[in-house]
Amino acid sequence: MLCVNVELQERRYPILIGSGLLQNEQNYPVKQGDRVMIVTNPTVAQFYLESVMTALQKRGAVTEYVLIPDGEKYKTLESLNLIFTALLKANHGRDTTIIALGGGVIGDVAGFAAASYQRGVRLIQIPTTLLSQVDSSVGGKTAVNHELGKNMIGAFYQPSMVLIDTLTLNTLPKREVNAGLAEVIKYGAILDNEFFVWLEKHVDDLVALKQDILQHCVARCCRIKADVVARDETEKGDRALLNLGHTFGHAIETHLGYGNWLHGEAVSTGMMVAAVLSEELGHLSLADVSRLEKLLARANLPTVSPDTMQPEDYLPHMMRDKKVLAGKLRLVLLKSLGQAYVATNTDHTLVLNAIRRCTQTD
Amino acid sequence: MLCVNVELQERRYPILIGSGLLQNEQNYPVKQGDRVMIVTNPTVAQFYLESVMTALQKRGAVTEYVLIPDGEKYKTLESLNLIFTALLKANHGRDTTIIALGGGVIGDVAGFAAASYQRGVRLIQIPTTLLSQVDSSVGGKTAVNHELGKNMIGAFYQPSMVLIDTLTLNTLPKREVNAGLAEVIKYGAILDNEFFVWLEKHVDDLVALKQDILQHCVARCCRIKADVVARDETEKGDRALLNLGHTFGHAIETHLGYGNWLHGEAVSTGMMVAAVLSEELGHLSLADVSRLEKLLARANLPTVSPDTMQPEDYLPHMMRDKKVLAGKLRLVLLKSLGQAYVATNTDHTLVLNAIRRCTQTD
Ligand SMILES: NC(=O)c1ccc[n+]([C@@H]2O[C@H](COP(=O)([O-])OP(=O)(O)OC[C@H]3O[C@@H](n4cnc5c(N)ncnc54)[C@H](O)[C@@H]3O)[C@@H](O)[C@H]2O)c1
Ligand SMILES: NC(=O)c1ccc[n+]([C@@H]2O[C@H](COP(=O)([O-])OP(=O)(O)OC[C@H]3O[C@@H](n4cnc5c(N)ncnc54)[C@H](O)[C@@H]3O)[C@@H](O)[C@H]2O)c1
Ligand SMILES: [Zn+2]
Ligand SMILES: [Zn+2]
Repeated sequence: MLCVNVELQERRYPILIGSGLLQNEQNYPVKQGDRVMIVTNPTVAQFYLESVMTALQKRGAVTEYVLIPDGEKYKTLESLNLIFTALLKANHGRDTTIIALGGGVIGDVAGFAAASYQRGVRLIQIPTTLLSQVDSSVGGKTAVNHELGKNMIGAFYQPSMVLIDTLTLNTLPKREVNAGLAEVIKYGAILDNEFFVWLEKHVDDLVALKQDILQHCVARCCRIKADVVARDETEKGDRALLNLGHTFGHAIETHLGYGNWLHGEAVSTGMMVAAVLSEELGHLSLADVSRLEKLLARANLPTVSPDTMQPEDYLPHMMRDKKVLAGKLRLVLLKSLGQAYVATNTDHTLVLNAIRRCTQTD
Repeated sequence: MLCVNVELQERRYPILIGSGLLQNEQNYPVKQGDRVMIVTNPTVAQFYLESVMTALQKRGAVTEYVLIPDGEKYKTLESLNLIFTALLKANHGRDTTIIALGGGVIGDVAGFAAASYQRGVRLIQIPTTLLSQVDSSVGGKTAVNHELGKNMIGAFYQPSMVLIDTLTLNTLPKREVNAGLAEVIKYGAILDNEFFVWLEKHVDDLVALKQDILQHCVARCCRIKADVVARDETEKGDRALLNLGHTFGHAIETHLGYGNWLHGEAVSTGMMVAAVLSEELGHLSLADVSRLEKLLARANLPTVSPDTMQPEDYLPHMMRDKKVLAGKLRLVLLKSLGQAYVATNTDHTLVLNAIRRCTQTD
C-alpha cells in the first residue's frame, strides 16, 4: 500500500493507494456507532457496495446508501437533492459521514452534498475510475452542472481521506480507463518531464492494468496534484496549470452535449490543440507535439476535433470558462513537455488556427 | 454612521450602519467596470432597487438584477437555480459580485448562491429587515430549506461587507419589525444583561423606529454577534448560544408550515419555553421569566405556543435539529438574564413540561 499525504493550510489528509483496500475494514476511519451514508450509482453498486458496507459494519458503523442515476447528465442539483432527501429522511445529523463510492461524477455530487448538508459534514472519497483516482478525488473541488455550463455550481471542500483501490479498475470499461490516462499524461506534460518519459515506457502496461505499474502511476499523479493543490488551495494561481487541455475540452463536451465524448477524451484533443498552439507560439518543437500525439494515441485517445464540431464553435464556449478574467481568455499552454504556463489574452486568430490544425479534414 | 468590524481568522470585513446609506455611492466597494448582480424580490425592489442601481452605476459598475419570488417558501434550491441561470445567461465570471438586497430570505439564498457560483464569488449584504440587520447578515451562515427541514442545505460564507440602512425599516410591515426585535432581545438574554436593561428602557422607541435609538441597537447587536462569530466561525462551540429559543422555534415553524408564524415570532415563544425550562432547572427566578415575557410582549411578540400545536408535536421536530449530536438533544438555556449555556441531554419530560407551561389552555 502506498500513502500520499495532502498538506493543507488547516489540516492534512491521507490518500491510501493499493490493491484490495476496499475489503479491509482497517482502512476505514470510522468507529462503533458512526453513521455513514454511501452515495453511489447502480453500476458501481453492483460491484462494490456490498464489500464497502460489510467492511464498515465490521467496524460497527451504521451504514445506509443512496443511489443516484449513472451518468454525467445526472450531475445536477436534482441528484444533489436526492442525497439531501435520503439524509433527512433517515435523520442524519451534522456528525454523519458521506462516502462517495464511484467515479468523478459521484465524487463531485457527493462531495458537494457533503460540503452543503447542514453546511458541511465529513467526507470520504472512494474513487473507482482512473480519472477520479488520479484527479477528481484529490484537491477538494466539488460541483454539479447547470444546463448552461459544466461545474458551475459547487464548493471547495476537502475529504478527510481518499481510499484508492486500483483493483476496481478491472471492472471499468476500457474506454473509461483510457480516458483516465489522458489526465495521467496531462501531469507529465504540465509539470514532470521525467514522468512523461516514464509514461512513454509504461503506457502499454497501464492500458493492460498491470497492478504495480498502476499503483506507482496513481501515486505519482496524486503526489503531483496534491503538491499543486497545497500550494494553491483555491485556484488563484498555479493550480490553473492542471487545466491543460480543459478549456478546449470543456468546449467540446458542452458542444456535443455532456456524455457523448468522455471528459478525458475531450481533454486529450484539448491537449493536442494546446500543444499545437504552443508550437505556433514558438515554444514546443514539432517533434514534441508528435511525441504527445503518439502517447495519447497509444492510450487509444482521440487527438483531433470531433467531426460534428466546427473550429468556430469553440470560442463562444471558451469565453464562458472560469479562467476568463475581465472578458480575457486565459489558456494553459506548454513551454516544453513537462512545463506548462498560463497565457493571457492569446490572439483569437492563433487559437482558431490551432483548432483548425487539429480538425480532421478528410 | 457607525461601523462594526468583524474579525475572522483569514480576513476582516466592515458592517456600516446609518440612515440613508443606500443612496450614497461612496459606500459601495466597487470600481469602474465591475460586474454586479443584485439579488432581490419584487417587494423590496419597488422601494430600493433603483437607488442601489443608481448608486452603483455612479461608481461605474455594470449592474444587473434578478428577482426571486417573495417569501420563506421560495428559499429553495429552485430559487438558487434562478440566480445561477441569470448569472450564466449574462456570462458572469468568477470576478462578479453578488449583492443581496432584502431580508433574511434573500440574504440566505443570495449568500449561498455567492458561495457556490463557480465555487465562490464576492458577496455584499444589504439587509432591509430588522432581523436581517441584527442577525442573518452577520456571521456568514447561508442556506436554503429542504421540504424535510429548514436551512438544511448551505455554506459558511462571509460577505466582503454589510451595508445597513436603518431608514429601510420605515417601509417594513410592523409585524416584521417586531419579529426582528425578538432576535434583539435574544442578544440581551444570552450575553448582555446591561443591554437587556437598556432594552427594557428603549423598547418603545425601537417599536416606533426612532432612528438614533435604532442605530445604536443594531450596532450593539452586530457587535455581540460579530464577537461570537469571531470566536467560533464554524459553530463548534460558543456560537450555539445564538440559538436561544431556536430549537423550539424551528419546531413551531416546521409544524405550522414555513411562513405562517414569522421566524422571530417562533423564536419569541421558543425563548419563553427555554426560560421556563431554565426556571424548572433552578437557574432563572420566576421574576426573570416574567421580565422576559413582558419585554417580548411590549414588542408585540407571542409568548405562548400556537393553539394548533400540541406539546407532543415539538420533540420529533426538535430531534432533527442541527445541534443534536449522537441522538442527544442539546438546548440553549439561561443561567440568568444575560448568560446562556448549552445543556446536553436534558430530560425529555422536563422539556415537555416547559412546553406545556407555555401552551395556552383557555
Ligand atoms: N473535482 C475535480 O477536481 C474533477 C477533476 C476532473 C474531473 N472531474 C469530473 O469527473 C467527472 C468524470 O469522472 P469519471 O470519468 O470518473 O466519470 P463517471 O463518474 O461518469 O464514471 C464513468 C463510468 O464508469 C462507471 N464506473 C465507475 N467506476 C466503475 C468501476 N470500478 N467499474 C465499472 N464501472 C465503473 C460509472 O458508473 C460511469 O458509468 C466529470 O463530471 C468531471 O467534471 C472532477
Ligand atoms: N443566516 C443566518 O444567520 C440567519 C439568521 C437568522 C435568520 N435567518 C433566516 O432569515 C429569514 C427570515 O428573514 P426576515 O425576517 O428578514 O424575512 P424575509 O426576508 O422574508 O423578509 C420579510 C418580509 O419583508 C419584506 N421586506 C424586506 N425588507 C423590506 C423593506 N425594507 N420594506 C418592506 N418590505 C420588506 C420581504 O420581502 C418579506 O416579505 C429566515 O429564512 C431565517 O432562516 C438566517
Ligand atoms: Zn479533467
Ligand atoms: Zn433567528
